[in-house]
Amino acid sequence: MYQEDDDDDDDDDDGGQASKQAPGREREQAYRDLETIMGGLEVERTTVGWAATDPSGVLSPYTYTLRNTGPEDVFIKVLYCGICHTDIHQTKNDLGMSNYPMVPGHEVVGEVLEVGSEVTKFIVGDRVGVGIVVGSCQNCRTCKSEMEQYCNKKIWNYNDVYTDGKSTQGGFAREMVVNSKFVVRIPEGMAAEQVAPLLCAGVTVYSPLTHFGLAKPGLRGGILGLGGVGHMGVKIAKAMGHTVTVISSSDRKKQEALDHLGADEYLVSSDEAAMTAAADSLDYIIDTVPVFHPLEPYLSLLKLDGKLILMGVINTPLQFVTPMIMLGRKSITGSFIGSVKETEEMLGFCKDKGLISEIEVVKMDYVNKAFERLEKNDVRYRFVVDVAGSKLQG
Amino acid sequence: MYQEDDDDDDDDDDGGQASKQAPGREREQAYRDLETIMGGLEVERTTVGWAATDPSGVLSPYTYTLRNTGPEDVFIKVLYCGICHTDIHQTKNDLGMSNYPMVPGHEVVGEVLEVGSEVTKFIVGDRVGVGIVVGSCQNCRTCKSEMEQYCNKKIWNYNDVYTDGKSTQGGFAREMVVNSKFVVRIPEGMAAEQVAPLLCAGVTVYSPLTHFGLAKPGLRGGILGLGGVGHMGVKIAKAMGHTVTVISSSDRKKQEALDHLGADEYLVSSDEAAMTAAADSLDYIIDTVPVFHPLEPYLSLLKLDGKLILMGVINTPLQFVTPMIMLGRKSITGSFIGSVKETEEMLGFCKDKGLISEIEVVKMDYVNKAFERLEKNDVRYRFVVDVAGSKLQG
Repeated sequence: MYQEDDDDDDDDDDGGQASKQAPGREREQAYRDLETIMGGLEVERTTVGWAATDPSGVLSPYTYTLRNTGPEDVFIKVLYCGICHTDIHQTKNDLGMSNYPMVPGHEVVGEVLEVGSEVTKFIVGDRVGVGIVVGSCQNCRTCKSEMEQYCNKKIWNYNDVYTDGKSTQGGFAREMVVNSKFVVRIPEGMAAEQVAPLLCAGVTVYSPLTHFGLAKPGLRGGILGLGGVGHMGVKIAKAMGHTVTVISSSDRKKQEALDHLGADEYLVSSDEAAMTAAADSLDYIIDTVPVFHPLEPYLSLLKLDGKLILMGVINTPLQFVTPMIMLGRKSITGSFIGSVKETEEMLGFCKDKGLISEIEVVKMDYVNKAFERLEKNDVRYRFVVDVAGSKLQG
Repeated sequence: MYQEDDDDDDDDDDGGQASKQAPGREREQAYRDLETIMGGLEVERTTVGWAATDPSGVLSPYTYTLRNTGPEDVFIKVLYCGICHTDIHQTKNDLGMSNYPMVPGHEVVGEVLEVGSEVTKFIVGDRVGVGIVVGSCQNCRTCKSEMEQYCNKKIWNYNDVYTDGKSTQGGFAREMVVNSKFVVRIPEGMAAEQVAPLLCAGVTVYSPLTHFGLAKPGLRGGILGLGGVGHMGVKIAKAMGHTVTVISSSDRKKQEALDHLGADEYLVSSDEAAMTAAADSLDYIIDTVPVFHPLEPYLSLLKLDGKLILMGVINTPLQFVTPMIMLGRKSITGSFIGSVKETEEMLGFCKDKGLISEIEVVKMDYVNKAFERLEKNDVRYRFVVDVAGSKLQG
């Protein structure tokens, strides 16, 4: 049973819920007693995270309540949380569906502090990961097929509403309560901070490569864009035995892609001669570009039956002319992160292959600067916030 | 050995090639003698077709020369030829790559009049079909995999240049010379005029359904657009055991789709309530619309992993936003007719299932009117020109 730190508890700003002002341990016991008497009253603990409060997207400390650890839940102390481009889209309301205050963060590595009565998968002290999905109906065809990330009733890690009616809040926070079915085990021997980006960026690449039958040696793959997802794309595709071409708008990252990340070739998309020479050469392209871009130059690079796999959430319509598709039976497709099962499989794959992410670890008070730099693609290749090592209160 | 009709021969308008002015049989014998002496000089016979001479797309009689029947070739008398929407695109230079004079027509049913010395697949008198591809390199990966329709060096039935440097001309003509490797046998018992639309419209639907693993019972398919390709889509999908929904911009064809073609459901795309109710319900949609249209209403109809299979050559860019794809791992894809092997397989399938196309047979002198009506989608569902039964000379 996790005991709250009285110091943190003092910062509770529960907006008039005076009954929660008692010091942590005593208050919690009082609630537990009340729950026993009332038969199931949920007790909410407070935590502190960094939230955006409006579409400026600037994060600042925010104290809020968590549900108590239900029978299927685990209560987690956040250790590290990666910063994904989607966090920027969400905090800035780029997708037009943001609710504030919003604590982002969906590449969460934590330590289990408490487990619900029906949880058998984890024990206190386990290192675990939480990704972008924290709930689903568990009853539909996709859920029953262990593809719960595609459930129409999936619940997002943050900027969503949980089954109890509360807003979900993400991993830039001291603690989280998460249904254990949406929590993965971190294999022994993997560094917690390295794992964070795998929980979104890693599985986002791993899932479509396996799903679309591309996880076999000998293929030629393209990675378009060398950010957080792209750099994991190079590493995972290489580990699958592919010949990997990085495609980028400039040659700025050429040496690093070839020498450091292990890519085989580097193609500058504005180099028309090189693009023409590379036509019909790739079995797939993982397209990680998160903003509008023309598709045709990349469709041209694909072989017969090649797949352009879109990873970037882009609400500006992308365009193509049909002959580019039809005359090579090419596909434009995409996928959304991966299932819990795939995430665990991917972690095992990365451990076996010795794959690590390339990260820049920052403290929480750097998060706004990190968002700014990420928007300019100025990071190699993923920011990870050392949440447990940061002072979270303002 | 086929003997040319002297009457037709008189209409040779070879533009100054005086040596070809001799009457047919004598001239041909003279050329054969010369070929024997010279060792390989090709003899060209004349034929007459209906050609577009400019982007007005109006067809009129046109006399031109054919290569002699080479070792791998068959010399064919055209019986029937279907009118496909692509013929309009090509004759009107909608794709910006038309050369004139152009004899269109790529749904050709004919009778073998002569076979080359190395042809073993056909004998004189066989009923055969010719589609849109009449040549390929026969050496690349796609050719060796019997997917020659995707060969980068494929030669189009018309508006292309053959290996001998001559323009290819299509099936609205008295005769054609075609490499036998690109000719299919028409099964016994199938009516020649019914088969014509199968050679393009039929295999265009059959090929992707089989290639993408959709040729199995129990699936739910959508057919968007009820023209030549669409009506074959309904019939073939039904014969594969699918539940078929026709999606159309109006309810004009509803009764016919349900009562006559055998569709199970009919969805009017402007009926928002019906479209919403049908969301996430289809495994695939065969999209036959040959002009710009929004994709998102149709992507919404697809289930997880559903495929939008584009059949229309559209040079105006089509658009979509990436979440529509990613959040359901959907694919936008398309394919291009089918291989010779698939065409033969499809003909066998149609014969076994008793499938016939729905056609309106017209004479050659109606072709311009037929093109006009086809542009307005005013045909149920395919025009087929009775070439052998028409007076081809103006």
